Amino acid sequence: MQITVAYTGICGTDLKIAHGAMDNRITSPWPIGHEMSGIIAEVGAGVEGWTEGDRVTVMPLDWCGQCPACEAGYSHVCHNLNFVGIDSPGSLQEKWNVRAGLLVRIPSELDLRAAALVEPVAVAVHDVRRARLASKSQVVVLGGGPIGILIALVSRHHDAQVIISEVNPFRAQFATGLGFHVINPRSEDLKTAVDEWTAGKGADFAFEVSGSSEGVAALTEVLAVRGRGVIVAIHPDPQPFNLFQMFWKELEIVGTRVYERTDFEEAIRLLTIGVIPAKALITDVMPLSEASAAIERLSSGEDIMKLLVSSGE
Amino acid sequence: MQITVAYTGICGTDLKIAHGAMDNRITSPWPIGHEMSGIIAEVGAGVEGWTEGDRVTVMPLDWCGQCPACEAGYSHVCHNLNFVGIDSPGSLQEKWNVRAGLLVRIPSELDLRAAALVEPVAVAVHDVRRARLASKSQVVVLGGGPIGILIALVSRHHDAQVIISEVNPFRAQFATGLGFHVINPRSEDLKTAVDEWTAGKGADFAFEVSGSSEGVAALTEVLAVRGRGVIVAIHPDPQPFNLFQMFWKELEIVGTRVYERTDFEEAIRLLTIGVIPAKALITDVMPLSEASAAIERLSSGEDIMKLLVSSGE
Repeated sequence: MQITVAYTGICGTDLKIAHGAMDNRITSPWPIGHEMSGIIAEVGAGVEGWTEGDRVTVMPLDWCGQCPACEAGYSHVCHNLNFVGIDSPGSLQEKWNVRAGLLVRIPSELDLRAAALVEPVAVAVHDVRRARLASKSQVVVLGGGPIGILIALVSRHHDAQVIISEVNPFRAQFATGLGFHVINPRSEDLKTAVDEWTAGKGADFAFEVSGSSEGVAALTEVLAVRGRGVIVAIHPDPQPFNLFQMFWKELEIVGTRVYERTDFEEAIRLLTIGVIPAKALITDVMPLSEASAAIERLSSGEDIMKLLVSSGE
Repeated sequence: MQITVAYTGICGTDLKIAHGAMDNRITSPWPIGHEMSGIIAEVGAGVEGWTEGDRVTVMPLDWCGQCPACEAGYSHVCHNLNFVGIDSPGSLQEKWNVRAGLLVRIPSELDLRAAALVEPVAVAVHDVRRARLASKSQVVVLGGGPIGILIALVSRHHDAQVIISEVNPFRAQFATGLGFHVINPRSEDLKTAVDEWTAGKGADFAFEVSGSSEGVAALTEVLAVRGRGVIVAIHPDPQPFNLFQMFWKELEIVGTRVYERTDFEEAIRLLTIGVIPAKALITDVMPLSEASAAIERLSSGEDIMKLLVSSGE
C-alpha cells in the first residue's frame, strides 16, 4: 500500500535515533517516524477492504508469527519484531509504502492532526491496561512529558485520582492546566505528599515515565501495600532498585512495551470522543522540509508537548 | 496460652538476628525462634476451642487490624506487624506464651518434627501462590537453600518442571537427590541452559531465593516474554536491576513476604501427605541447651538443610 503521509509526530525514541544513541540497532539511513496519519494513495495488488482516499494510521509493528512470543499470543513483543520507522523506513516522507496489515482506519470525525497522536495514546492505553487499573484508584505518574500526560488522562478516564510528579515548569503548568495535581519532587517531598493524600496507605498504582533513577526510587516509595508499579520509560542500563520495598509491601512491578491492536482501537476512540485533548497537546506543526529543525527544537528542551511534521504543507 | 515447645527450626533471619545484623529492629534480649511445634500446656482464661495436650504450631504474625494494609485485607503485611520471635519473644525456650489467635492445629498424622517445618513450607506455598503458577510451567529457582528447595517442591506439586540454580555442592547434591535438575551457574551458562530447555522461549516463572546480585540479574535474564519473577530473598540494599529486560519482555516482578492463614493450612496438608519430605530435610536435631552451638553450626556453612532445636530433650 502507498500512503500519502499527512502528519508525523516526533517522539523521544526518534530523538535518540537522530542523535545516534541507537546506532547499534539502526543500520540504514532511512526516514524515521512512526506516529502518523495519512490517506491511501494506492491500494496494493490483491489487497481487499481498502480504497484510495481512505484515512488511516499505521500500527508500526511487523512480527514474525513464528517465535515463542508470537505463538503465545504476544506478537507485539515478537522476538524478531520489526518496528516500522525504526527497524525499517518510517513516515517522515511524502509517500510511504507499508503492508496493508499494518493499516488502521481513522473515523471521519477524527481530524488527521489528532490522528497522528493515535500511536502515543495507544502506548498510554496499553500501559494503563498492563497496570490492571482498578476504578477509583489513587495513581501517581512519575514524569509529565507526553506519555506521562496521556497515562494520566487515560487513568482519569478510568475514574482514578491522579498526582503527577514533574520537575519541568512548562510540563508542570501544562498538566495543571489539564486539571491534574502536580508535585515538584525537588521542592516538596513526594512520599510525604502521597502519604497525606492517601491517609497513610500509599498509591494503588504508579507509573515510572521519567526515565530517571529518582523516578525508579520513587516508584517503590509511593506505592501502597500490594501496589502495582509500571515501568514505562526505557532504562537502557540497570538501575538501583529497592527490592526491600518490593518484599516489605508485596509490590508488583510490571514491564510494558508498545501496544496491541485493541490499544490502537481504544486510542482512536478516546481521541474521537475528546478524552484526549489533541489540540491542546499539539504545540506546533512544521513542514517536512523543516523536519531536522523540528528535531532540533525538541532536543533543545524548548517548551513543547507534541510537535507534528506535516508532509503535505 | 502456654505451649510446651517441642521443636524449633532455625532460619536465615534467626542467624542475622543472632549476629546483630538486625539490631536496629531487635531491641530486647528475648529468645528468638518462630518455626516451631509444641503441645498446649495451659489454656488461657476464657479461651475456647483448645484443650491441654492439643498439638499445635504458631503462625507468628500479630497484626494491628486497623492500618490501611489490615483494612485492605493484607494483615500479614500490616504496617505495624509484630513478627513473633523477632519483634517479641520466640520459641527457643521450654515454655512459650502466645495469643490463642496465633495457634494452628497439627493433625495427628503429622509428627512434631515435621510440624516444625510448617512455617517455612508456608513461606514457599505463599511464594508460589504469589507467582500465580500455571500448571505445566517451566520454573527456574535461583538458590537451593531450604526455601528454594521448598519452592521447587511446591512448584513440582503444581506439575511444573523445575530447574534449580545453585553453586553450593551440598545443596546441589541434595536437590539432585530430590529429583531436580540442578545447574551450577559458575560452571554452566544458566541463560543458555534455560534457552535450550525451553526451546528459546525462556522460563515461565522464576524465583530469586539466593539473595545475591547474580540471582537478581539472572531473574530477568531467564524469564520468557510475559514471564513472572518472584523476589523471595530479602535484599536489604537496592540492587542493580535490569529494567530494559522488564520493558523488552514485558516481565512482571512480584514481591512476597511471609504467608497468610491459607498458606499455613496448605503447608500442613503438603507435609501431611508427604509432598514435603520432612525427614530428608531435617539434617539434625540438637537440644535446647545447645541452641547457641546450633546457630554456630548453621553460620559456619556446614552441610545442613534444616536444623531443629528440641526443647524437650
